[in-house]
Amino acid sequence: MYQLIEKLYPICRSITGEGNRKTLRILQEIIPLKIQEVPTGTKVFDWTVPKEWNIRDAYIMDSKGNKIIDFKKSNLHVLNYSMPVQKKVSYNELKEHIFTLPEKPDWIPYRTSYYKENWGFCMSHNQFMELREDEEYEVFIDSSLSDGSLTYGEYYIRGDKDDEILFSTHICHPSLCNDNLSGIAVCTYLARHLSEMKTRYSYRFLFIPGTIGSITWLAKNEDKVKNIKGGLVVACIGDGGGFTYKRSRRGISEMDRAVENVLKHSGRNYQVRDFIPYGYDERQYCSPGFNLPVGCLMRTPHGEYPEYHTSGDNLELVHPDNLKESFDILLSIIDLIENNRKYINTNPKCEPQLGRRGLYDMIGGTNRKEKELAMLWVLNMSDGERSLLDISERSGCNFDLINKVANILKEKDLLRGVEVV
Amino acid sequence: MYQLIEKLYPICRSITGEGNRKTLRILQEIIPLKIQEVPTGTKVFDWTVPKEWNIRDAYIMDSKGNKIIDFKKSNLHVLNYSMPVQKKVSYNELKEHIFTLPEKPDWIPYRTSYYKENWGFCMSHNQFMELREDEEYEVFIDSSLSDGSLTYGEYYIRGDKDDEILFSTHICHPSLCNDNLSGIAVCTYLARHLSEMKTRYSYRFLFIPGTIGSITWLAKNEDKVKNIKGGLVVACIGDGGGFTYKRSRRGISEMDRAVENVLKHSGRNYQVRDFIPYGYDERQYCSPGFNLPVGCLMRTPHGEYPEYHTSGDNLELVHPDNLKESFDILLSIIDLIENNRKYINTNPKCEPQLGRRGLYDMIGGTNRKEKELAMLWVLNMSDGERSLLDISERSGCNFDLINKVANILKEKDLLRGVEVV
Amino acid sequence: MYQLIEKLYPICRSITGEGNRKTLRILQEIIPLKIQEVPTGTKVFDWTVPKEWNIRDAYIMDSKGNKIIDFKKSNLHVLNYSMPVQKKVSYNELKEHIFTLPEKPDWIPYRTSYYKENWGFCMSHNQFMELREDEEYEVFIDSSLSDGSLTYGEYYIRGDKDDEILFSTHICHPSLCNDNLSGIAVCTYLARHLSEMKTRYSYRFLFIPGTIGSITWLAKNEDKVKNIKGGLVVACIGDGGGFTYKRSRRGISEMDRAVENVLKHSGRNYQVRDFIPYGYDERQYCSPGFNLPVGCLMRTPHGEYPEYHTSGDNLELVHPDNLKESFDILLSIIDLIENNRKYINTNPKCEPQLGRRGLYDMIGGTNRKEKELAMLWVLNMSDGERSLLDISERSGCNFDLINKVANILKEKDLLRGVEVV
Repeated sequence: MYQLIEKLYPICRSITGEGNRKTLRILQEIIPLKIQEVPTGTKVFDWTVPKEWNIRDAYIMDSKGNKIIDFKKSNLHVLNYSMPVQKKVSYNELKEHIFTLPEKPDWIPYRTSYYKENWGFCMSHNQFMELREDEEYEVFIDSSLSDGSLTYGEYYIRGDKDDEILFSTHICHPSLCNDNLSGIAVCTYLARHLSEMKTRYSYRFLFIPGTIGSITWLAKNEDKVKNIKGGLVVACIGDGGGFTYKRSRRGISEMDRAVENVLKHSGRNYQVRDFIPYGYDERQYCSPGFNLPVGCLMRTPHGEYPEYHTSGDNLELVHPDNLKESFDILLSIIDLIENNRKYINTNPKCEPQLGRRGLYDMIGGTNRKEKELAMLWVLNMSDGERSLLDISERSGCNFDLINKVANILKEKDLLRGVEVV
Repeated sequence: MYQLIEKLYPICRSITGEGNRKTLRILQEIIPLKIQEVPTGTKVFDWTVPKEWNIRDAYIMDSKGNKIIDFKKSNLHVLNYSMPVQKKVSYNELKEHIFTLPEKPDWIPYRTSYYKENWGFCMSHNQFMELREDEEYEVFIDSSLSDGSLTYGEYYIRGDKDDEILFSTHICHPSLCNDNLSGIAVCTYLARHLSEMKTRYSYRFLFIPGTIGSITWLAKNEDKVKNIKGGLVVACIGDGGGFTYKRSRRGISEMDRAVENVLKHSGRNYQVRDFIPYGYDERQYCSPGFNLPVGCLMRTPHGEYPEYHTSGDNLELVHPDNLKESFDILLSIIDLIENNRKYINTNPKCEPQLGRRGLYDMIGGTNRKEKELAMLWVLNMSDGERSLLDISERSGCNFDLINKVANILKEKDLLRGVEVV
Repeated sequence: MYQLIEKLYPICRSITGEGNRKTLRILQEIIPLKIQEVPTGTKVFDWTVPKEWNIRDAYIMDSKGNKIIDFKKSNLHVLNYSMPVQKKVSYNELKEHIFTLPEKPDWIPYRTSYYKENWGFCMSHNQFMELREDEEYEVFIDSSLSDGSLTYGEYYIRGDKDDEILFSTHICHPSLCNDNLSGIAVCTYLARHLSEMKTRYSYRFLFIPGTIGSITWLAKNEDKVKNIKGGLVVACIGDGGGFTYKRSRRGISEMDRAVENVLKHSGRNYQVRDFIPYGYDERQYCSPGFNLPVGCLMRTPHGEYPEYHTSGDNLELVHPDNLKESFDILLSIIDLIENNRKYINTNPKCEPQLGRRGLYDMIGGTNRKEKELAMLWVLNMSDGERSLLDISERSGCNFDLINKVANILKEKDLLRGVEVV
């Protein structure tokens, strides 16, 4: 995952353009995702697919011919979606098109102007302070904004059921690692992992530009929405912070409860926040006309780490261990949802005699008491109404243990499965 | 409001009598309230309108002809509803008819004997200690208890709807300022203010003697009760304490939630208490046969400030600033209820594009982020089921802001109104 | 109660056998309980009534003829349900059949082997340390395991209604006082007390061996289960700890709320715990096929006092005062359930006039204000939907007071009874 991030890091992405195609083609080396193109001008609900933006080069050159800003060194230097420009400008005119972060003077900020035509450069405040007021600068942006298409990647893994779990991650950021090459990398390898498993549910992975991408997908796939049983927006998932789960608008859907259950028993620091209508693409999935049970899993949330949306969000901010941990948590969430079934106790009147079936011995191990109690919980609560997740929540036992003893009890015909409708 | 209190302060009021009529006639100089008379003996549910009590003079005179207690100096000196009396009494006999407050020796207590015939005087404990055991005193109370009527004031302001909001305040206390000339003054000016506004709801103001007054009104107006959408008993509202809201028996009615919302965002100290069947006229409005959503707004609750029901509850205990603050809170509550509507997001699928409608600029101001988020909350939550009050509670944004952005979104046709049924 | 415990203490009980019959015959001296016999081999749900175990004598004798362990001194010395044995064994062989408590070296542990054939002895760890490795020992257990029956006691007290309250206490422990001669003694005298009262509900007392006893009763009395309105397993009720109430699986049944209400107002230390499927016979009553509202009342819970299941659980651990206190709490619970009715306020519109009915005087006493407020609560809440227990919970007034004022109000025709369905 980290190597994938390293490979994708230099590419200049945006909400449209060649950088996105290049990114998705690299992902195709790992998973067979489909690259979808939606033409400029397509109406998607209240929005319109914008013109495609591409950029080849950009710089600011002083009168001595020194490139003091060079797009080739960092694609963050250019205001994302900048119009083309080539002219000589005074310090005062240039200043109006420069973005810096005075409070973080070493870092280049990341700025965009998708829906308002403009041109501009981003640089560290320290570098900005070195510009000379009496100097004339040449500004050059070799970009184009023209009819083309919006590009996104989609990978659908068919399971036993039509019901599907959605993973959505945004691909519109240029050289920023945690936000969101981390999400891209983790989702890519999660998809590859799932494609090698037999699953009860179907899985859909979307690699989309933020906001306009999820709006476009929803507009073009309204017929598929009814199958979405739950989902997660995955972003900012490679830093060293604890986990943050932002609930879906529904708040208590199975996905919401699954994530909370896994985090609770993970031994990791975590926090759970209620839905608010600000953030990533969960804003669209949770709009009132869809109200999908789609939450957002992050480590440190957007805007809450100092490197956010600056050149500080680089390859040093994310770490392979963190990516692995995030991957594992996501896998545990999937595992929970895959195994969250309802059972009926076939001997509901009084306890069945576990001893004569060898069940006390069968469980064995060091935490025998805990397993025995888990078995009693599953028997006591399995009335066909409660799922294993309900039983895990009620008992305080972790889902794995509950699921494990449920399988043992099922083998002994003490439980009979009931399909969750 | 404070001047009105000064004017009403000297009048001797009770549950019936000329003092009440005089009080209501003074209010008629400000608002066109109707003075209602209900004859002695009228059956009102389990009760009967009592005889009318009037008093002209009263004193205790020592053997040297000194009036040591004089009703003209303070009407608190006479046990309210005292029978007439004129005789010479020994110290020992007199003592049986004297009420004092040993623990607050400077203050005259306020005492009543509405439903048990008696005569008596109230005086400061210090003065009582100066009485001589060997002295003979003349007691004189020139009062009358005879067929007449119970008098109350009613002012109905017609709004667009039959649904009405009730404000009820008690007028039965003689020279006591906070309890309850403060309630009378604030309600009078609130009524005048509302009479000059165009309102969605109708408003009814009752100026009534405590207990028997609300029972009488309810008994004679059972047909109107169905229109009462919510209401407040207003009392003890002029002192310097924080606000106290006592919930209606229903506890979570719109009125209850409106008051709590306004207090929460008011920046004032406040507390909210659950309904108990003890207190002011909310006892009657919240009796199980009516169960009206009528709470009680106070500052320091009855019985919880030392001056309560003593001569210490005088013109110094209430202050114009406090009255104004209470008035403003009540107006905010009315404003919330008037504006608490439900809307439907006309673009429920994904977010509408706010930028191209100039909505990001429109909101402007210093707290732009807060306003933008409020806009997203209103759009996300406006599914026709949730009211603006629901959205204010869910988002934590104050109601004014939520209402303001809702109006902007409505102008842009992004919201469509749904009438609260 | 304490004398009964003293009398029962020496008897060797188990899940079957003569010791249980002898125990129940002693209880018959106090209450006319029926002794029920269920033959070995009877199928009871998933279980089978086991062979009957009886024991006459047992010892370990050293080569000099000294009985170093003697069943006659403590029946705890023999592994309960031991097979008969008589042979000479080496130290090493003997060691495999000895149970001790190294961490509590003075006490003999209590151990059983009901469903796995074995023989064994229990002794203090100190005594075990004195055994000699080079010694040959004679082990002798004069026991029998053969067809017979499972024995339990049942006492049914008919009340006005078929609905019944169940008290269940286990009788399978040998010389252990708190667990559970305390439960046996308290239930016996509670039953005697109830038999002398006229009650609204019927009462059933079960004196049964743990687990297999309740399973057997439920299997043979499925037709009676529908009448069980609530119940309590009573165990470990004689020690000096605070009370522990373990809720039924339903958690909020009337019995659950009654126990919590009584404990809350008892002035005693207490804790309330949610149901878990581990513990005493509530495991069976609360199995999903029955889901009866049966909780468990204890003082210090099983396993949480050091003497639990050791010879330390002796006559010194329980105390007459504790037994009396437990008895009183149980009686208060019964009193609450017997008196928990719903009433309708016959004057629901506004408050009735209490004064003219002399109700303010009637209540009198030192806590007059409290009683007056309780009266207002009962009137305000008695809408036919709320029970007196609901009113006690809502008002915070103790049930006795609520019930007392309800009776006064009923006498004055201000309340009319509604039968709880």
